[in-house]
Amino acid sequence: MENFIEKLNPDQKKELERQYQLYTSGTQDVVPLQELKNKIAKSLFLGKPLKVKLGLDPSAPDVHLGHTVVLNKLKQFQENGHTIQLIIGDFTGKIGDPTGKSAARKQLNDEEVKHNAETYFEQFGKVLDMGKAELHYNSKWLSALHLQDVIELAGKITVARLLERNDFSERLGAGKPISLHEFFYPLMQGYDSVMLESDIELGGNDQHFNVLMGRHLQEHYGKEKQVVILVPLLEGLDGKEKMSKSKNNYIGVDEKPEDMYGKAMSIPDELMEKYFRLATSLPLAEKMSIQEKLEEGSLHPRDAKMQLARTIVSMYHGHEAAEKAEDHFKSVFQQGSMPEDMPALTWDGSDEPDLLELLMFAGFFPSRSEARWMVLNGGVRMNGEKAEDINTKVSLQAELILQVGKRKFARIKKV
Amino acid sequence: MENFIEKLNPDQKKELERQYQLYTSGTQDVVPLQELKNKIAKSLFLGKPLKVKLGLDPSAPDVHLGHTVVLNKLKQFQENGHTIQLIIGDFTGKIGDPTGKSAARKQLNDEEVKHNAETYFEQFGKVLDMGKAELHYNSKWLSALHLQDVIELAGKITVARLLERNDFSERLGAGKPISLHEFFYPLMQGYDSVMLESDIELGGNDQHFNVLMGRHLQEHYGKEKQVVILVPLLEGLDGKEKMSKSKNNYIGVDEKPEDMYGKAMSIPDELMEKYFRLATSLPLAEKMSIQEKLEEGSLHPRDAKMQLARTIVSMYHGHEAAEKAEDHFKSVFQQGSMPEDMPALTWDGSDEPDLLELLMFAGFFPSRSEARWMVLNGGVRMNGEKAEDINTKVSLQAELILQVGKRKFARIKKV
Repeated sequence: MENFIEKLNPDQKKELERQYQLYTSGTQDVVPLQELKNKIAKSLFLGKPLKVKLGLDPSAPDVHLGHTVVLNKLKQFQENGHTIQLIIGDFTGKIGDPTGKSAARKQLNDEEVKHNAETYFEQFGKVLDMGKAELHYNSKWLSALHLQDVIELAGKITVARLLERNDFSERLGAGKPISLHEFFYPLMQGYDSVMLESDIELGGNDQHFNVLMGRHLQEHYGKEKQVVILVPLLEGLDGKEKMSKSKNNYIGVDEKPEDMYGKAMSIPDELMEKYFRLATSLPLAEKMSIQEKLEEGSLHPRDAKMQLARTIVSMYHGHEAAEKAEDHFKSVFQQGSMPEDMPALTWDGSDEPDLLELLMFAGFFPSRSEARWMVLNGGVRMNGEKAEDINTKVSLQAELILQVGKRKFARIKKV
Repeated sequence: MENFIEKLNPDQKKELERQYQLYTSGTQDVVPLQELKNKIAKSLFLGKPLKVKLGLDPSAPDVHLGHTVVLNKLKQFQENGHTIQLIIGDFTGKIGDPTGKSAARKQLNDEEVKHNAETYFEQFGKVLDMGKAELHYNSKWLSALHLQDVIELAGKITVARLLERNDFSERLGAGKPISLHEFFYPLMQGYDSVMLESDIELGGNDQHFNVLMGRHLQEHYGKEKQVVILVPLLEGLDGKEKMSKSKNNYIGVDEKPEDMYGKAMSIPDELMEKYFRLATSLPLAEKMSIQEKLEEGSLHPRDAKMQLARTIVSMYHGHEAAEKAEDHFKSVFQQGSMPEDMPALTWDGSDEPDLLELLMFAGFFPSRSEARWMVLNGGVRMNGEKAEDINTKVSLQAELILQVGKRKFARIKKV
């Protein structure tokens, strides 16, 4: 690719620097940096938007804050006039797992794929301008490939290179089977970039191998190579694992303001800065100021976390809803004069336990009948609100505070 | 597969034993032996012929004695009423090597494939009854496969299993590249067995991995598994390498009787027994008797070799031609009272050297003009026949005996 940077006039060079700083901020890795700069320069010089790709797995369309890290990055490109390419990986979704061994690769029918894609797009609309985004289903080109094309595609990669992917080499080393078709997932993802002539592909940091495949294949099909931008992974509410629905440690972008706020308040203090940085659209200067104040001690962590929670709720429900959610939270958790310290319990039973069961589990009552009596008499509160139905099933997605009478409290969360 | 052996009546059991002995004789390996027996039993019980498969590479249609080892085995099946399935691997032939690196995988067009296949079949007709053989081109089913089918196929094999193939594991170990598409050659070959529901597949001993793939895939596609019969590889005239055209150490089934006879006479003594065993259709008892007599010393190796040469020529050209070829050989090499010992020279120059060049190479003449003079004066013989043309190009496919005058001799062969 020729050098476009040197062709720019001074104003364009300034704009180049601005965009370059913006796109590289908050990323984990950009491969290669210099090419990104030149791609932006080319776009400025030719007045042609960049094509920025994001691939989506059609089997898990619940969008949470973990996803928004990459969506916020896409938004930066979109706000600067570049073209977003969203690819629904419906081809592999429709095949499912040919060995039948992987529960994660459930086979989806046309309707499910369509429904899941729409669910994605609806939720993405909270971050991106979907009217301007390109939507693609990769079955369009992948289902048209014949064995002859597949052989040609496979001829562009070596077995050794595929075995460099961490999970493959680990499994081969440990004598665990790798089915040959698994080698095709990264290849198909990469082939999408060939077909769409993407300039840039975004992905989470765990997608390193897969998104680089697009770059490799584009080169071997004689196309301009895409630049790869990897964003950091966001840990979930547990502060340990990557945020995901299956770990139940997530804040969904579709959740109710109160739930979103409450969940945001439950993240560990040490992750606050990362959430501010990756999951909010506050200006960079403001993020840094909060960070500094926290370090100085001039901002109390609880107040910072309330600001974080407010910011997050605002992003998805607007300012008013955020104010309301904060008021609700305060009335329940702060004005209710709950003790700062209370027993913290971990529930490892069913997903939606019985209220009565939980009351016994917390040690408040020795028998079901006594627990029932107290609920019927209005002496039990869940998150500050009076429990009225003895048959209540309790959702433990976020932490729950159980209260009996005025003095007895317990925090309960799921394993 | 249910047990058919126990369902047979005594006559059928006798026939079962006869065929079983015949098919297993002279093989390198049968996987698994007991299933072969049961397949034959099934065929006898149901009165249904077995389907016996042989896959052919369409890029090298010159049939030589090395190929006839497996053809002779096929013939045994055919003579007992079973069905021969000959598969031309035209699909891969037409693709060629997608990386462009393998000279051996030259891309063939439709016409070349057709011509090569016809060349095969014409030559096979010298061993098999081609009127009763099934002919298949695997592009018929392979070119109809879509990516989705390929993924399903690939899902039936693990990477570790493929890496068990010797050349793959060696190359991976040595850091030499294996292109992913190479994994598909054994899979495609195996898929042919799925489509043709073959009962038995034949192959040379170096095809162990590939022919077992058919068995593996049939099982995973819910078919009855084929039995694999591997025949030994025949060394070429050099006594070292597997007979092949590229090594120029072969006897082609299409060669002229005299050339065939002469080449057969040039094989090393220690390979005679193997040639008798694998490359002739003499009855087993006769083969064993020759072997015994050679060991006792009651048969001179030269006489045994003449019998071998005569037998081979008879197989492809009939008895009369064999007699003539033997007479020719005797008149040139034996009645011409050539010395038993003469200098043996190895030529490593061009494929078809000039006669004059060879005469100088052998040290008979110091200059081209002297060599020319002697040829013009009738003093030079090639394999006992007078050389008349000073511009003769000499073929060194078989050993050549040069003679100058009455006393000077040299044996010349190519490297």
